[in-house]
Amino acid sequence: VLSGGTGSAKFLRGLCKAVPPEEVTVIVNVGDNTTMFGLYICPDVDTITYALSGILDEERGWGIRSDSFNFLSSLRTLGLSAWFNLGDKDLATHVYRTMKLKENVALSQITHDIAGRLGVRSRILPATDDFLETRVLTDQGEMHLQEFWVRWRGAPAVKGIVYLGADRAKPAAGVEDALASADTVILAPANPITSIGPILAVKRIRETLQKRGPRRVAVSPLIGRNAVSGPAGKIMSGLGLEVSPVTLAKLYCDIVDTLIIHTSDENLKSDIEKLGIRCVVANILMRDSNEEKRLANHAITA
Amino acid sequence: VLSGGTGSAKFLRGLCKAVPPEEVTVIVNVGDNTTMFGLYICPDVDTITYALSGILDEERGWGIRSDSFNFLSSLRTLGLSAWFNLGDKDLATHVYRTMKLKENVALSQITHDIAGRLGVRSRILPATDDFLETRVLTDQGEMHLQEFWVRWRGAPAVKGIVYLGADRAKPAAGVEDALASADTVILAPANPITSIGPILAVKRIRETLQKRGPRRVAVSPLIGRNAVSGPAGKIMSGLGLEVSPVTLAKLYCDIVDTLIIHTSDENLKSDIEKLGIRCVVANILMRDSNEEKRLANHAITA
Repeated sequence: VLSGGTGSAKFLRGLCKAVPPEEVTVIVNVGDNTTMFGLYICPDVDTITYALSGILDEERGWGIRSDSFNFLSSLRTLGLSAWFNLGDKDLATHVYRTMKLKENVALSQITHDIAGRLGVRSRILPATDDFLETRVLTDQGEMHLQEFWVRWRGAPAVKGIVYLGADRAKPAAGVEDALASADTVILAPANPITSIGPILAVKRIRETLQKRGPRRVAVSPLIGRNAVSGPAGKIMSGLGLEVSPVTLAKLYCDIVDTLIIHTSDENLKSDIEKLGIRCVVANILMRDSNEEKRLANHAITA
Repeated sequence: VLSGGTGSAKFLRGLCKAVPPEEVTVIVNVGDNTTMFGLYICPDVDTITYALSGILDEERGWGIRSDSFNFLSSLRTLGLSAWFNLGDKDLATHVYRTMKLKENVALSQITHDIAGRLGVRSRILPATDDFLETRVLTDQGEMHLQEFWVRWRGAPAVKGIVYLGADRAKPAAGVEDALASADTVILAPANPITSIGPILAVKRIRETLQKRGPRRVAVSPLIGRNAVSGPAGKIMSGLGLEVSPVTLAKLYCDIVDTLIIHTSDENLKSDIEKLGIRCVVANILMRDSNEEKRLANHAITA
């Protein structure tokens, strides 16, 4: 499963109920990674790790359940503007990872170790161990995606997206093998530009997916002209892309066999199939754990 | 005031009730400083800062009152042995300091900024901005003082003490001026080897103190053959020093005019005065804030 954060976490939770968790490998977006207060933070990797270990704060969609925020409020007292939320339990992950990176342990190894300690039975792989950062070009200047979405609440007008470092980034160890040996590769319902996009920007990942072999299924993160969550709509519009499942089909037509769209978008089916992609119509909303599992089942049987 | 941690904090709290806090400059031991989980920690500087800002956990003698420990318990889940206690609020100080040090801000400036943010009205100066670390040579090998006292609970036999880096350490900006311009220099009731010792190991600090000028008063951290708190007895014995206020007089005879000892040690007065130091007998126990203030008054009027 190629994965972003919040929406993908719900899908993966369902998938791990539909199939044995040990059979699932998740390749996670690292374009959101950032250094904050000297700590290296991987928002999507952590959200997926916490979700699959059962400690995710599901209401917020990020962080650890019943965490405290004493660190952050004390940091504010010291005058550091903390627009990014960091719980006290969550912080242990960032401090641990930062320390291990300084010891030259690869991010993929650290991710594996943290997931193991937290009891995750699936395999979680960052797309790359190399530097890769999604920069948003806006009318307020260039900024990190988290800055755009969390700090400025998506207010600046988007003019472009750059995957900094992507041209030199290699897939993390295990990524290409996992893609080649999978029965099914699923693009989770995630932002095509800022979640799936940075993963596919790693050239050898996109090339591996272009080869036919495993079934390749994408689940739409859009319903009509709206993203179910996150900045997909805002960013796609900014790039001059129509906010529509048809655009997903265009972006993914070389790497996906099947696209699952929401029932209310059934009228787009023929436009999608004209692009050479099979289109499956289903209820893609995940409002509870039953719907999460049902959507996962759609994806593995589509 | 030359200062260590817990005992000095009580004395300083009393002093800031006896005189206007703005008139107090504290020169704090840095020999206990250490890097833990990639974070730079200054146990004594923090204890003094928290004490003078009124947020110290007075029962424990370290850390911030009503702190939580969620970070530490999560770190334990990730497999990091955390023998050193770090509260969630406390952690903000370490993360802030580590970040600023990486930006090449001097420890003395960072200490000043933190104290200002926490409303401290006295001046807190680390003895030096340079590397200085107290190493304990034991029958279990050489170790950091915190490792000896906190991790191994003072169990290894002490064979020696080394102030690593002291030969190259310069006083932090402001330290020499503060010593030269003070009305009274007070050595707080603190471990002479591991709290006051590292400060005096900075050659230019000891030399400044050797010059007569301000009144120079030391308060004994010992009552009879016992330290009021901390590892002073254990470490002094290990170095072959008699655990006695007379030993303090020997260690301080070139830099102190007056030594204040406990009433029950009155019999040692003549031995101390033979060393050329005036000896004042008083109740040096600080069991409550009144006793803290009374001892401070003794020190400034002795």
